[in-house]
Amino acid sequence: MASRKTPDATRRSERSRVAILTAARELIAEVGYAKLSIEAIAARAGVGKQTIYRWWSSKGAVVFDSLLALSEGADGEGIALPDTGDIEADLKTVLRATVAEFADPEFEAPIRALNTEIINDAELAAIYREKMAAPVEEAKKERLRSAQRAGQLAADADLDLFLEVLYAPLAQRWLLRSGPLDDAFADALVDAALRAFRPE
Amino acid sequence: MASRKTPDATRRSERSRVAILTAARELIAEVGYAKLSIEAIAARAGVGKQTIYRWWSSKGAVVFDSLLALSEGADGEGIALPDTGDIEADLKTVLRATVAEFADPEFEAPIRALNTEIINDAELAAIYREKMAAPVEEAKKERLRSAQRAGQLAADADLDLFLEVLYAPLAQRWLLRSGPLDDAFADALVDAALRAFRPE
Repeated sequence: MASRKTPDATRRSERSRVAILTAARELIAEVGYAKLSIEAIAARAGVGKQTIYRWWSSKGAVVFDSLLALSEGADGEGIALPDTGDIEADLKTVLRATVAEFADPEFEAPIRALNTEIINDAELAAIYREKMAAPVEEAKKERLRSAQRAGQLAADADLDLFLEVLYAPLAQRWLLRSGPLDDAFADALVDAALRAFRPE
Repeated sequence: MASRKTPDATRRSERSRVAILTAARELIAEVGYAKLSIEAIAARAGVGKQTIYRWWSSKGAVVFDSLLALSEGADGEGIALPDTGDIEADLKTVLRATVAEFADPEFEAPIRALNTEIINDAELAAIYREKMAAPVEEAKKERLRSAQRAGQLAADADLDLFLEVLYAPLAQRWLLRSGPLDDAFADALVDAALRAFRPE
């Protein structure tokens, strides 16, 4: 869309946009999604409510964009799993890092808020899958294909199912707080998934 | 706690309680948790708001009790998995039934609402685990122990991990609507879990 804005106005817009997304992300971590309001985001960002509503239709939409901005490589660039040639070691490295992220309130609070939204909003769930989940899953599958070529994983393994068996138990323990989320659990999941899909 | 109520008053109380829990369950399925109000529950149940607040501290507490009342065998009685001697066939029967339940809006809407609450409320999560999840998990583990005795499952298999590998991917597809929830997926999960924990 062509813009009639002067360069100064464009710079001001971009500054406001960044301030709003930063405020949304900070406030989610501080007060949680339920208590987050457009008013509070506007006050923290130093803009009027109207400025927010000009760009976003709802609280959920701002929050989603604030998390998308946070997620490096949401455009599919720059995501790659380690490939040392040892799939077991590499997956354990990656899963332990995920466990560490979930232990960090600054990281986990906004993601928990996002999950709450996604669970109750099928449309947001579809956007999330396309924009955030799919690029990351493709990067993970790229690493799994390399393991298949190396004969460390069954050639006919269903890679989507593999990723669900590997990650869903971790996500569930985190979401429902149903058990310890630690390195031992991360390692046990990797071992179980590799046993389930090992070459015959 | 001793009650000074007359038998008639006790019967009226019990009738109100049942009406409130039924109304809460119906309304969750109809309007979802976010739009559910104590006012609406009171109106549907034909009681005053005060009556609800006398027994429950919050919307979440009423909803939780309404689902607890729904869950047959939440006290641990009457839950048992089929045991035909064939663990693969029995688990496929059970997982296909779970998939069918998730396809039923009347069943899945309140459980989705409950999950949303649990994700954002660590205290409710602990109550849920103790009152609803633990008895059901124990019944499942009973069936797995029988499979271990029959040599169909590794004797040293971590049964908690087995259940998470089996059920978390199913719960995740349902919650995030991230893929088809059908018999083929149920069967593939059973096959993967059994491969991961088969006897050496």
